[in-house]
Amino acid sequence: MKFMKIPAATITRLSIYSRALEGLINEGAPVVSSKRLAELCGVNPAQIRKDLAYFGQFGVRGVGYYVKELLFDIKKILGLNKEWSLAIVGMGNLGCALMAHENFLKQGYRFVAAFDADPMKIGLKLANGMPINAVSDLPRLCRETGAEIGVICTPAAVAQEIANRFVEAAIKGILNFAPTQIQAPKGCKVENVDFSVKLDNLAYHLTSA
Amino acid sequence: MKFMKIPAATITRLSIYSRALEGLINEGAPVVSSKRLAELCGVNPAQIRKDLAYFGQFGVRGVGYYVKELLFDIKKILGLNKEWSLAIVGMGNLGCALMAHENFLKQGYRFVAAFDADPMKIGLKLANGMPINAVSDLPRLCRETGAEIGVICTPAAVAQEIANRFVEAAIKGILNFAPTQIQAPKGCKVENVDFSVKLDNLAYHLTSA
Repeated sequence: MKFMKIPAATITRLSIYSRALEGLINEGAPVVSSKRLAELCGVNPAQIRKDLAYFGQFGVRGVGYYVKELLFDIKKILGLNKEWSLAIVGMGNLGCALMAHENFLKQGYRFVAAFDADPMKIGLKLANGMPINAVSDLPRLCRETGAEIGVICTPAAVAQEIANRFVEAAIKGILNFAPTQIQAPKGCKVENVDFSVKLDNLAYHLTSA
Repeated sequence: MKFMKIPAATITRLSIYSRALEGLINEGAPVVSSKRLAELCGVNPAQIRKDLAYFGQFGVRGVGYYVKELLFDIKKILGLNKEWSLAIVGMGNLGCALMAHENFLKQGYRFVAAFDADPMKIGLKLANGMPINAVSDLPRLCRETGAEIGVICTPAAVAQEIANRFVEAAIKGILNFAPTQIQAPKGCKVENVDFSVKLDNLAYHLTSA
């Protein structure tokens, strides 16, 4: 599996499948047909089979997928059979919203350190009791807390500088909310979140409807 | 064009191409090769040609794409040759962060009305001077302001109720940040934003690296 190039879209869909499977577990469904799972995820059943085929044999012909089993397997594929530690920089509205987000901890992501450049904020405690630290303490605190993923919620102008600090602190994955492209060295993966791409999708549908 | 089924992924990629083209315009580049544009967008050149082929003939063989022209055409395809009016419900941290987001207005999305259920917030003015309105005024204010897209930043438990109100107010597109699946009638398009899907991508890369 480590030697095969898996399309990025497959990984994104696995994540979406896992959300649907969690919903099915909440509903108490032990088994799901590939047709039903496909409907829930907005894809076609062949796509699900193709995505899963990269990783082995899943499901039973004529039955479908065992919900808990498939969720367990997908979480293992995605590396979600452990908890991930997050460090976050930029405790403005967005940063605070992310830390309070209902789903993160449920999905296995725990914030372990928070930073801001504003001297007025440094030393304050967040709603969960975590202190806001100075950015100068980032390398040390990332090491001490075992942070693995860096989250950037700063203005665009300083996002690259923060990314550089994360890289210095041996962070290998960055989730960037700042509206700018970040350059990272090979070995550090950056995912950009751009809300307006979703709005463009809506605009297209409203226009072509 | 209106009769052909365009893959959702194509629309998302067009949006990503437009961001890259905007970057190229800022750099002063008049022309871009499909190879370079593909690199900037993390796809292969054949994908760009395939996506654009749904909508006509673009680019010049041996030259590439004229940056401004292609951006103009993509914006027209996406329906971004006009400004879109947004109504937002839930003025917590996330709602306030979205209203202040640098990119939305630049991309042609303008917030025209804001709502919250909290009596302590209703009547307060946001940083941009816009008042926070009661949710009971949603249908009337959506009509009066000409809101076209509804943005939901409420807790999961009330998201469906807010979606229903948007639908009653003839809103045809909903951007949902609440961590729950929303049901909307045919004719109303819902886009869900789930940050944790991006985190799953990072987790996968950190695990399989």
